[in-house]
Amino acid sequence: MIMKREIRVLGIDDSPFDKFKDRYVIVIGAFFRGGNHMDGVVSTKISVDGNNSTKKLAAMVNSSRFKAQLKCLMIDGINMGGFNVIDIHGLYRLTKVPVIVVVRRKPDLPNIKRILARLGMSRKIALLDRAGAPFRCGKIYIQFAGISFDEAKEIVEITATHSYLPEPVRVAHLIGAGLAFGESKGNA
Amino acid sequence: MIMKREIRVLGIDDSPFDKFKDRYVIVIGAFFRGGNHMDGVVSTKISVDGNNSTKKLAAMVNSSRFKAQLKCLMIDGINMGGFNVIDIHGLYRLTKVPVIVVVRRKPDLPNIKRILARLGMSRKIALLDRAGAPFRCGKIYIQFAGISFDEAKEIVEITATHSYLPEPVRVAHLIGAGLAFGESKGNA
Repeated sequence: MIMKREIRVLGIDDSPFDKFKDRYVIVIGAFFRGGNHMDGVVSTKISVDGNNSTKKLAAMVNSSRFKAQLKCLMIDGINMGGFNVIDIHGLYRLTKVPVIVVVRRKPDLPNIKRILARLGMSRKIALLDRAGAPFRCGKIYIQFAGISFDEAKEIVEITATHSYLPEPVRVAHLIGAGLAFGESKGNA
Repeated sequence: MIMKREIRVLGIDDSPFDKFKDRYVIVIGAFFRGGNHMDGVVSTKISVDGNNSTKKLAAMVNSSRFKAQLKCLMIDGINMGGFNVIDIHGLYRLTKVPVIVVVRRKPDLPNIKRILARLGMSRKIALLDRAGAPFRCGKIYIQFAGISFDEAKEIVEITATHSYLPEPVRVAHLIGAGLAFGESKGNA
């Protein structure tokens, strides 16, 4: 399959929060056409360490006017708002939009699972397992739902215009980081 | 003077607010290199119909790590947060960074002044007058401080890559609009 370079993608990331104080965290969605043109922003709030990220992201996507043209969601990590773990297959089922999770560094899954078990969040370990092992894709790793690895890799390559990170995710990250009412640290 | 196309510009716009309820409004700053690459986001809060926009914007700019490279600030209109009118010459004085105000439609200044006078905000009429009349610049109008019209026009032309609006302002607008925890309406 050959994809056009102007495919519409929604990059998603959360904003920093104070884990001792904040109950909610802002999640940003940045609509892109390909890897250059941002043409919309959406946002929602999810609970810190809660269980509503899948439902809230699905509502954000389903109520957006660009939904019909969306080729995929690109999410900066499967954990939003601390350990509000996203069920990526559930998100695909609720939205019918394929999901690509972008992982900057290969996660230490055994350690994350130990932490979740210790916090009494064992249910979330199943979500991590269901998401599948992160696959290497250029300089990053990806997990995916509703899409093949080859298609996901092609979308990553099309949209990674300014760095090794896909632009929709890089920009969603910058926006989220800038909302700490300070300056985004901009890892990319 | 010939400017390079990768000049660093900070696009600034506020987010929607409820004038009957909200006391503060979020202001977004989007750092761009030229008209394509966003590499940082900052934000601050100003009071609705207040007098602190100039001071707050100056603090946001002066505390940013990109400040030394900033060629100019591009602001989406001289009124932020309702009638928190920006003193663009004061902003230039406080930051030493030239200011370009982007005006999408020629404002009905006599009417705005009547409203301000009626609201007992006559002091702000002086700020509007000091900003100077909006000059036509392509499809938009601009006001400026600390920079000549010709230089300001060149920066507008360099950065208006995706529409007649300079990209830093277009994107700051989309981000602000997306923070209403709904979807940005994206006028551009």
